Amino acid sequence: MNPGFDLEALRHGNRRALAKAITLVESRLEEHREQAQSILEQTLPLSGNSIRIGITGIPGVGKSTFIEAFGLHLIEQGKRVAVLAVDPSSPIAGGSILGDKTRMEELSRHDAAFIRPSPAEGALGGVAQKTRETMLLCEAAGYDVVLVETVGVGQSEYEVAGMVDFFMVLMLPNAGDELQGIKKGIMELADALVINKADGESVNLASMTLKHYTAAMTLLRHALHWSPQVMTCSALQRENIDGVWNMVLEYEQQVKREQAFQTKRDRQARDWMRHLINEMLQLKLTQNNAAKRLLPELEQQVLAQTMTPYAAARRIIDCL
Amino acid sequence: MNPGFDLEALRHGNRRALAKAITLVESRLEEHREQAQSILEQTLPLSGNSIRIGITGIPGVGKSTFIEAFGLHLIEQGKRVAVLAVDPSSPIAGGSILGDKTRMEELSRHDAAFIRPSPAEGALGGVAQKTRETMLLCEAAGYDVVLVETVGVGQSEYEVAGMVDFFMVLMLPNAGDELQGIKKGIMELADALVINKADGESVNLASMTLKHYTAAMTLLRHALHWSPQVMTCSALQRENIDGVWNMVLEYEQQVKREQAFQTKRDRQARDWMRHLINEMLQLKLTQNNAAKRLLPELEQQVLAQTMTPYAAARRIIDCL
Repeated sequence: MNPGFDLEALRHGNRRALAKAITLVESRLEEHREQAQSILEQTLPLSGNSIRIGITGIPGVGKSTFIEAFGLHLIEQGKRVAVLAVDPSSPIAGGSILGDKTRMEELSRHDAAFIRPSPAEGALGGVAQKTRETMLLCEAAGYDVVLVETVGVGQSEYEVAGMVDFFMVLMLPNAGDELQGIKKGIMELADALVINKADGESVNLASMTLKHYTAAMTLLRHALHWSPQVMTCSALQRENIDGVWNMVLEYEQQVKREQAFQTKRDRQARDWMRHLINEMLQLKLTQNNAAKRLLPELEQQVLAQTMTPYAAARRIIDCL
Repeated sequence: MNPGFDLEALRHGNRRALAKAITLVESRLEEHREQAQSILEQTLPLSGNSIRIGITGIPGVGKSTFIEAFGLHLIEQGKRVAVLAVDPSSPIAGGSILGDKTRMEELSRHDAAFIRPSPAEGALGGVAQKTRETMLLCEAAGYDVVLVETVGVGQSEYEVAGMVDFFMVLMLPNAGDELQGIKKGIMELADALVINKADGESVNLASMTLKHYTAAMTLLRHALHWSPQVMTCSALQRENIDGVWNMVLEYEQQVKREQAFQTKRDRQARDWMRHLINEMLQLKLTQNNAAKRLLPELEQQVLAQTMTPYAAARRIIDCL
């Protein structure tokens, strides 16, 4: 079924086996997709044992530097760290935001780190589906912490927030610039705001920003089991990186104590399943030739007021 | 096909014929739905000639008093006015927000006004579908202005904004209480904020509120062809009701000059058709016995990590 794929090697953390499985997950070939599904079903019982952390922030906020510092700190604590990316813009930009591993030079050389660029836009479920599956494979390969990075483009932050246990928004020390172009909906998803670049001449500005956002966050609705934290750090100076990690550990303890950790994952899995069902239903329609031919014609009739939207929709559905 | 239904009477504005057609639209019986669709197709070429105005606002803002004052002003201008409601909570509350016509006593007695309470939650497309169809019937019966009222519950404001030409949010004179519990998304849909109850001791507060929201509205993104207006009025004292109507007329002129009026309606019709197609697709699934049986079982397997969400979704779709 999976010629040349070594499940035992993957289970024991072999990087080549992991990379090969991810390549199958990311492939556009139907044959590879089937192999990938078979591997996923075999590795599924081994997955789920990491803490999944989503990291977002506008370009220039220092995401790479932060992830490098954060990842190295985790490795010092004895963790194995996988870094994945969800970047819907990568095919347009001609390369992934993580394609250039020199961005995280020290981390990428480390045995305990596995860095994987964003998959190109793909089949059903899009980039998010592939990243979710890659996450499961990394967990099966024994990675304790999975960092999922995204740039703030389109729906990607929502997608990442929907697949992680803890969602972190990196900010610049810049209190005046309200919300720094970050959508309000994203702030409501954040489990923490981390103000990076709190170093050099920006130290004072960073602590003003801290106050500003601490006040702002109390105005937003959030999850029941956790009050979102706001803190500063300097990824460049490696300052308070341990503070950020301790916060994540505190979060994990608290939500596990209140049984909310698994509840959130269950909700995410259920939501994602529903999402895929919807996409597959849509696909059934777009792959139906009669419906495809009829749609523009019926739309014209609706716009010309010779048919109601209801009657037009009915006729499309009757094609199935 | 439509025993007892008199299309000619409807076209000439006969209230009984209109009420009868709406009753068919709102009926849950399949036979009535078919009759309703037939009537709609016949009246469709006659519809579309009104200006459709959506009105929302939190309970206590004075919606009924405003609609009464606004409607009477329109009738003075020689218009015929239909008042409809989209109230998703009405079946729970045991009655429509417009059920009690004494709310708009003077207006409801008027020959040139037609007031229809919110339909009870119903079949495909929900309350919004029935209200859209009722709107078309009112237009065919010669009503020049259709007012669609909603309380700010759930998705109802979005649904109303998606079926009208002009969307108005009524506010209280209360600058301090930021956004007055109205969702930010709703503010982005608003073509106007109208601060009601600008009378008596509240006059000064209302003008402060006016300044506050005028500033706030510039921060939000809006449609290209119109900058949302903020104004005050007193429905109780019948003050500046003409100002509100003149603003709507100005809007109509401006967007018609820029060809944006029909463009918006076309987009709404297309969006609604897509929405109905999606609902019908969902329905196909929920009406499929095999899928219905399988769903909870597959969900359990996903949560127990013995199946991926992708594989589970695939199996559901294979039932169709």
